[in-house]
Amino acid sequence: MKQVIVARRDLDLDAGKLAAQVAHAALTAADRADDDARSQWRDGGQKKVVLRADAERDLHELAEEARREGLPHAVIRDAGHTVLEPGTVTTLGIGPAPAAAIDRVTGELSLY
Amino acid sequence: MKQVIVARRDLDLDAGKLAAQVAHAALTAADRADDDARSQWRDGGQKKVVLRADAERDLHELAEEARREGLPHAVIRDAGHTVLEPGTVTTLGIGPAPAAAIDRVTGELSLY
Repeated sequence: MKQVIVARRDLDLDAGKLAAQVAHAALTAADRADDDARSQWRDGGQKKVVLRADAERDLHELAEEARREGLPHAVIRDAGHTVLEPGTVTTLGIGPAPAAAIDRVTGELSLY
Repeated sequence: MKQVIVARRDLDLDAGKLAAQVAHAALTAADRADDDARSQWRDGGQKKVVLRADAERDLHELAEEARREGLPHAVIRDAGHTVLEPGTVTTLGIGPAPAAAIDRVTGELSLY
């Protein structure tokens, strides 16, 4: 079991802001997984990987693929109180789910 | 309600690795909060802030203060599969909890 968070690199977020957006995606996607997947994942060390996307469009396409695969996922929009325009799409969380199923969606992406 | 994640800057983690450690802290601390705090926080937009610490010792001291305040918290150690030594303490998540209570513990820290 693992979780993947895809983050837009084209926004040039500073490391702390990026981390907050990634955490938001991780929490929201995990909330949408079922209890069984979540506890298996937690017991296995809560593996998670942060991958990169280069445009908002990529996140929407990946979210659509995750939906087709039946994977829990969450597209995160920033509230825009600080550096970003309100509603800016920043990250996509997928899983926790079996690694092989997630890899069908994000297997070609690079580490952030 | 908010959540704070304190991350060690002295480890010089790359942005993706840092984000994964912050997400781990956010999830684990949220798991330790009660359902009521968690749902209030979620309904309020799941506010979270990433702050910096400069040494492992700081995280332990802050965790002890969080414990004394009765705040849900989690000290995260990396599994050490990649760049870090196994067991390296990387982050501390505190909350979700009332902002004023968290500020008593982390109010003097800077943004990451």
